[in-house]
Amino acid sequence: MKLFYGPGACSIGIHLILEELGIPFETQAVSTRDGSVHKPDYLAINPKAKVPALLRDDGTVLTEFPVIAWWLAKSHPEAKLIPTDLEGEARTLEWLDYLCGTVHPQGFTRQFRPGNFGKDEADHPRVVAQGKAMSEKYLALIEGRIAGDPWLLASGYSVADAALFFLARWCVGPLGIALPPKIAKHYEAMKARPAVQRAVARETA
Amino acid sequence: MKLFYGPGACSIGIHLILEELGIPFETQAVSTRDGSVHKPDYLAINPKAKVPALLRDDGTVLTEFPVIAWWLAKSHPEAKLIPTDLEGEARTLEWLDYLCGTVHPQGFTRQFRPGNFGKDEADHPRVVAQGKAMSEKYLALIEGRIAGDPWLLASGYSVADAALFFLARWCVGPLGIALPPKIAKHYEAMKARPAVQRAVARETA
Repeated sequence: MKLFYGPGACSIGIHLILEELGIPFETQAVSTRDGSVHKPDYLAINPKAKVPALLRDDGTVLTEFPVIAWWLAKSHPEAKLIPTDLEGEARTLEWLDYLCGTVHPQGFTRQFRPGNFGKDEADHPRVVAQGKAMSEKYLALIEGRIAGDPWLLASGYSVADAALFFLARWCVGPLGIALPPKIAKHYEAMKARPAVQRAVARETA
Repeated sequence: MKLFYGPGACSIGIHLILEELGIPFETQAVSTRDGSVHKPDYLAINPKAKVPALLRDDGTVLTEFPVIAWWLAKSHPEAKLIPTDLEGEARTLEWLDYLCGTVHPQGFTRQFRPGNFGKDEADHPRVVAQGKAMSEKYLALIEGRIAGDPWLLASGYSVADAALFFLARWCVGPLGIALPPKIAKHYEAMKARPAVQRAVARETA
């Protein structure tokens, strides 16, 4: 398998799941910064021009963070990265969709790419401030819904935790947003996992 | 069960899935227009202040369109609204996430709520035009990836089709965006389904 990831992007979450599984995989960096995400070579892999994308051993490509995370967990049940009951699986998907489909593109993308939300550069500080306020509101909501300790689900560690990790990493890193206590504890627990350390080391080497 | 929906919103897709299942359910309209989506009564149901939300018979609430659609299909296997193999299920979720998590909030929301993407009202026509251009690009990508006839998956009708329906309905209705041939055929096939007709009639009564 081959993971197409963006340096510093949400795809670190899929990267760490691959490390958790302990299966062989390759990685290839693509980026909006150098335009490689829009080049024909990558569009042939993922016409959506986004990361992450997973090229599987049968030659097919799977896209969308929540779906790649879910599929990796489901196709490797021995790793126990997703609950086996329908309700637990639903809650895992609900976390993934909320973190990757709302919190990231609404709160965080406003801060990383204010040009998507305001035409004039003079307006970008307002967009960034709005994104930060939205992110803090989302984090408070997440904090109140964390059912486990330190993991999102009461049943234990799951692929949903990989999504909260990339958001917390952005807060602690480039964005300078303070983490509420449970999310801070979650972030520390994630950083202590060898799989997370291997994924981070590989992307920042 | 009780579906919280927005008149004219994406939640029509969950509404029609409930009709496909033929199970008893209630509906309650909430809206950003009258502010009811932000009132304490609704925030107690869904603190994310979004539709759809599904209040289930055990009193718990499930949110996120793709997850509600997936859960309804999985918990009613007799309705055959999702493939039973892992790969088919992954492709169903991939469609749901792309249509609900990218195409809707990026292309279509720019047209419905330009104020989310541009502060000045004078800039809104530009945001709307940008959203229309993005939507047309997304529709072309969707058109090229439709694997069935007329349904999204080669294996037949699934809950993913409910997501393409609400997007096509916005195109044909308020947005005036021409549908590519396969999506137009899909939309006609959806409108011919009694379950779809019942959901539309109930929301527009």
